Amino acid sequence: VKLSEIAAQLGAELLGDGNLDISSAAAIESAKPDQITFLANDKYAKFLPETRAGAVILKEKPADSTHNYLIHSEPYYAFARSLRFFYPLPQTSLTAGTASSAVIAADARVPESVHVGDFVQIGAGSAIGKNSKIMANCVIGRNCAIGDNCLIYPNVTIYDETIIGNNVSIHAGTVIGSDGYGYALYQGEHFKVLQIGRVRIEDDVEIGANTTVDRAALGETVIGKGTKIDNLVQVAHNVKIGKGSLLVSQSGVSGSTTLGEYVILAGQAGLVGHITVGDRTIVGAQAGVGHNLEADKIYGGSPAREFRNWKKLEAHFARLPERMKELKELRRKVDELAAQLSRLESEK
Amino acid sequence: VKLSEIAAQLGAELLGDGNLDISSAAAIESAKPDQITFLANDKYAKFLPETRAGAVILKEKPADSTHNYLIHSEPYYAFARSLRFFYPLPQTSLTAGTASSAVIAADARVPESVHVGDFVQIGAGSAIGKNSKIMANCVIGRNCAIGDNCLIYPNVTIYDETIIGNNVSIHAGTVIGSDGYGYALYQGEHFKVLQIGRVRIEDDVEIGANTTVDRAALGETVIGKGTKIDNLVQVAHNVKIGKGSLLVSQSGVSGSTTLGEYVILAGQAGLVGHITVGDRTIVGAQAGVGHNLEADKIYGGSPAREFRNWKKLEAHFARLPERMKELKELRRKVDELAAQLSRLESEK
Amino acid sequence: VKLSEIAAQLGAELLGDGNLDISSAAAIESAKPDQITFLANDKYAKFLPETRAGAVILKEKPADSTHNYLIHSEPYYAFARSLRFFYPLPQTSLTAGTASSAVIAADARVPESVHVGDFVQIGAGSAIGKNSKIMANCVIGRNCAIGDNCLIYPNVTIYDETIIGNNVSIHAGTVIGSDGYGYALYQGEHFKVLQIGRVRIEDDVEIGANTTVDRAALGETVIGKGTKIDNLVQVAHNVKIGKGSLLVSQSGVSGSTTLGEYVILAGQAGLVGHITVGDRTIVGAQAGVGHNLEADKIYGGSPAREFRNWKKLEAHFARLPERMKELKELRRKVDELAAQLSRLESEK
Repeated sequence: VKLSEIAAQLGAELLGDGNLDISSAAAIESAKPDQITFLANDKYAKFLPETRAGAVILKEKPADSTHNYLIHSEPYYAFARSLRFFYPLPQTSLTAGTASSAVIAADARVPESVHVGDFVQIGAGSAIGKNSKIMANCVIGRNCAIGDNCLIYPNVTIYDETIIGNNVSIHAGTVIGSDGYGYALYQGEHFKVLQIGRVRIEDDVEIGANTTVDRAALGETVIGKGTKIDNLVQVAHNVKIGKGSLLVSQSGVSGSTTLGEYVILAGQAGLVGHITVGDRTIVGAQAGVGHNLEADKIYGGSPAREFRNWKKLEAHFARLPERMKELKELRRKVDELAAQLSRLESEK
Repeated sequence: VKLSEIAAQLGAELLGDGNLDISSAAAIESAKPDQITFLANDKYAKFLPETRAGAVILKEKPADSTHNYLIHSEPYYAFARSLRFFYPLPQTSLTAGTASSAVIAADARVPESVHVGDFVQIGAGSAIGKNSKIMANCVIGRNCAIGDNCLIYPNVTIYDETIIGNNVSIHAGTVIGSDGYGYALYQGEHFKVLQIGRVRIEDDVEIGANTTVDRAALGETVIGKGTKIDNLVQVAHNVKIGKGSLLVSQSGVSGSTTLGEYVILAGQAGLVGHITVGDRTIVGAQAGVGHNLEADKIYGGSPAREFRNWKKLEAHFARLPERMKELKELRRKVDELAAQLSRLESEK
Repeated sequence: VKLSEIAAQLGAELLGDGNLDISSAAAIESAKPDQITFLANDKYAKFLPETRAGAVILKEKPADSTHNYLIHSEPYYAFARSLRFFYPLPQTSLTAGTASSAVIAADARVPESVHVGDFVQIGAGSAIGKNSKIMANCVIGRNCAIGDNCLIYPNVTIYDETIIGNNVSIHAGTVIGSDGYGYALYQGEHFKVLQIGRVRIEDDVEIGANTTVDRAALGETVIGKGTKIDNLVQVAHNVKIGKGSLLVSQSGVSGSTTLGEYVILAGQAGLVGHITVGDRTIVGAQAGVGHNLEADKIYGGSPAREFRNWKKLEAHFARLPERMKELKELRRKVDELAAQLSRLESEK
């Protein structure tokens, strides 16, 4: 693809040789002369002078003209878009049609455009939308509705009654709709609370591998439109997640907690149940949240505090040995002063 | 179902219209006039005055008679029991019989009452108890014994020699009996320690989705009767868990650690290996436990401390900026006093 | 097996009856007279005097001759080797040949010595090395290369283009090669960054159950030779792990982070992305690492600090109530001194 064409399609400003033919993409430290790359994270700026890349996408015009540049306000996004010129979407290799080994209930609706892999089971009353790909060894329960253009990777389990929108991707090993963790302790026994509700996943959601999303006890567990969930994340029963949120790997949300829009939970963050997190709020890695969080704030630590406050406390924590030494010296000094003073008084 | 009948079966005191017909159950904020609900968590008390529920289960008699009430010492338990009037158990829809695609070893014992789903494999020498349901794509190894009335959800893997009691439920994607993590470092290589032992799961245990329970190196990993384990929990080799314990999502127990009865590990709590946790002890969310814990105590923090002590330390931590400012001022004051005192002495 | 023969093969010094016949192995507290055991962890030394074991492997010659002893510089390693005399490797029971239910692409290369279990799918262009065992319900994508003598346990998913060396074991439910978590936020949408790279796993790696290893965005995610990964671990895209490292259960490594050789991540430890961990460095349980770590060091805490420093800070933290009381008393004392001093001055 000619660099000028890439620039035009990305809406980027081209500095350099538009006739250059770009054939693929690579990271800045390993890119070759026929590859495009980008620079968005300052940690990698050191690789810029010597990169052999055919073109580099940058945020701002550089002083030099050593390389061919594409200037775009969001270099990472522009790079992500450029990948689509060179690489097929993963679904393109999965042809329409149902593997002969798949077991599909007589009344399940599976359009011809759908790919159903080997050893897939689709339960009674379920419906799959057009062009979706259900890969090998997936188990889809009864009365599920899965939208159009979904990608369900191998070994995924989707329990009965789950509702999934369009353009949803679910990676291998993930479980959607398993029973919420609900028991009532009575006379020494944990009596199981039937989990009657369901899971509803809105459009454009992506869920990583080996993640778990529990069905609601009553009502719905909801994953909002465009939310992206990483691997090994726990979403408990009756959780509601707003649109565009990000739940990074190994984070966990306890039952009945509600997340706003564009919330970010960093890796291994944990939230207790029955709380609310405001829109656009960021919860730092390994943070432990025990109460409602306001919108548009950043939190860190376990127990979680507003980020700036937490950082300040951590700085004080780090200086404790020094400060406690000062305290000790101060005590000694005060004792001396007291002695001095009482000498003075007695001499009076 | 008439409300009076529900009251009678739950052993609850009825305040209101016993002839009301209840057809299902719902949460207090969304319940309709033909639905029963409950109030157990104070956070939801605000919904009581305006709930449209046909009946509300409460712990204590209310002052008003706005709604129909059922009074029970354990409202959540009573509600959980009431669900059984309206909703079938999940196993009822799974009919007895073996899917033609399942591969069952010639000498495996699978009674006619058992449901075996599609693409299930059951290994040589294994036995399944009556009325158990082994759902699609499960793999059960050799010489396993699974009891009566078990529910094994799809895509579960049970390794060779695993022993499972009666009324055990295991959710999708969970792995029971995988090798413990044991290596002996010798001359730069991690030499694998064969994991010869097995897993034994007692009656009435429920295990969530994508959890892992490792086989013992030697001997047994044991999950005690009535213990309930959530999603994405790690139970390492040779762990022993007493009866009635609760392991919440993403908690982890390292090798050879022993938990007593009715122990609770909250979400993301972690325990090192080779320690003991006393009966009825609660380990808080994200707590990190490095030593034995006494019975009947609550612990929090990482490293874990007794809860009250931890809370006290956290309160001091939160006041560090203020206290360190005081320390600084005190230093200034002491310096002033010292100066004042030496002036006084010199003037003498 | 005669104890003298075991001693000879292990290169251990024999103290006692070499003619004793040993038939199996057990833990020190439960071993019987025909079993061998070992003592490596001081916590178990209390069991030594009364063990009924036929032989005990010890590091140093004991004063007594109560039992038969084998003396070896590495008792745990020697014990691990002794297990191989009594117990078959897990793969021995899996015969060569392909289950009739398996679906193998026409151009996939699967030698006759390979075991392919029921309901396995192997994609186009993939190759399996000799004597490898691919167990039931595994899904192996296209253009994968798996080496010799590998053990792939049931329900494992291996995405397209994954490269796996020789003698690699992967436990049930694990996912290799799922998409890395990469999105570019643009005008309110998380635009998916195609994950073009792959996973490469070197020889002698073992990976536990329900672990996830993401494919690289570009280039490779690499697990170095002899590295051992536990259950429920997250390895993100473009992570590079050096040889001989240990990643304990529920630990997580974020994108593009590089671990050296023989690094240890203890349970639930978490590392941010784009950092480097030096060779032989140990990261403690639940530690949270936000910056590069030097080689040959031990780190603990969240945020992680050098272990000794962290322990010191924790000790100060634990003494805060006492110290803050001292601070308060000191303030009172200083106030008294000030009052005393001003009395003195006024009396002058």
